[in-house]
This record gives sequence, structure tokens and C-alpha cells, in this order.
Amino acid sequence: MPCPFASTPAPPYYAVIFAAQRRAGADAGYAQTAGRMAQLATAQPGYLGVVSSRDADGFGITVSYWRDAESIRAWREQIEHARARARGRECWYTHYQLRVARVERAYDWAAAAPPEDLP
Amino acid sequence: MPCPFASTPAPPYYAVIFAAQRRAGADAGYAQTAGRMAQLATAQPGYLGVVSSRDADGFGITVSYWRDAESIRAWREQIEHARARARGRECWYTHYQLRVARVERAYDWAAAAPPEDLP
Repeated sequence: MPCPFASTPAPPYYAVIFAAQRRAGADAGYAQTAGRMAQLATAQPGYLGVVSSRDADGFGITVSYWRDAESIRAWREQIEHARARARGRECWYTHYQLRVARVERAYDWAAAAPPEDLP
Repeated sequence: MPCPFASTPAPPYYAVIFAAQRRAGADAGYAQTAGRMAQLATAQPGYLGVVSSRDADGFGITVSYWRDAESIRAWREQIEHARARARGRECWYTHYQLRVARVERAYDWAAAAPPEDLP
């Protein structure tokens, strides 16, 4: 599977924290639109990366990272993205929360790779 | 199921964004410790709430909300929490990312409840 982590630069930068409950069984067009939005976001000025997770009950969290507040504003106003959000409210979500936050500190940790076999 | 959303006050406040990949099959003690940490966090000064999601591949995101950076520092230094983090690195995770961010803006949206039946 593709690496689910985001490669972000040193802070400061911005995070958009999106927590949402999907409607039961409401999948028509969702995956296609989500894929298209991920593709569009990558091409936006100031986009830094994204992490996303959705549990078996349809509750998901997506955190996208951006260079600055201006980049977030431009992405919000992107017309195809605005239409997708309207569609989300109409068809796909029962409830969501959005938080815009300025990242001040960041830490990454990874387990040491197991030692390779000697030749 | 319990409501998965966080009831946070008006910004500003702080978010700790924790994204982590679980090791395959490494569940010994994890759920018990996670439950205990959730209980302890709730009792910490400055704790505001939490949202959490984990997908079928074991990639999870937890965002906890705090009144200020000092509350986050105190929670990081809480001894039982520090031990749990060490155990996480030793046993439960292959990789994680932590971001500390100052929440500047917040929006909540919920679908209108369906009209109730007339009596």
C-alpha cells in the first residue's frame, strides 16, 4: 500500500483538520470525487501533503497541510472543490467539523528497520 | 455508538495531531492502554476533547484538543502517559507523526434532522 504519511517541511505551516461522519450506504460518486479532490489539491499552490483515515463506522479524519492561510483560502475557493463540498453536505455526510490550525511543532518517529541479513 | 465529535470552545486553542501506523497483529495490551490514556487525558487540566479514527490497514489519526501549549506540555510529562508512549514505540507502532498546532478557525456542520412525524 502507498505510504500514508505526509512529508512536511519544518514548521510553521498550516493544517486543515476535517472530521466527518459518512451517511450509511451513501457511496454514490463519493470515491470518484474524493480521488479527484486529492488530485486537484496536489496541484494547488502551497499544498504540502495529507493524511487520512476512516474507520468501520464511517467516521473519518483527513488532515491536509498547507504553506499558509492564503493557500487554504485559495483551495476553498477552487470551484470544483466548492461544488464537491456542497455535494458532500447534500449526499455524503451527516456531520462534519473543520479546524484550521497553525502548526508550530512537528516530530516524526519510525521504528529502526530490522538488520539486513549478512551476505 | 457514542458521538465521535469533539465539543470545543471558540478558538484559539491547541490541537495535537497524531498519525500512526500500527504493527500488524501487535494488539497485546493496546486497547486497554488506549482506553486508560483516554480516561487520564479527560482528567488533565486544559483538556478540551478528542477525535479518533483508524482504518482497516491499521493507519490511525487522533486529534486531541487543549486549552494551551502549557496543557499539552503537562500531559506529555504525565508519567503514566510517558510510559505508554514508550510502550507504543516498543510494541505497537512502526511509524508515527506528531504535530502541535494552534487552532485559529473552526466550523461545524450537521445535516438538518429529518422532520418529526406530526402527532
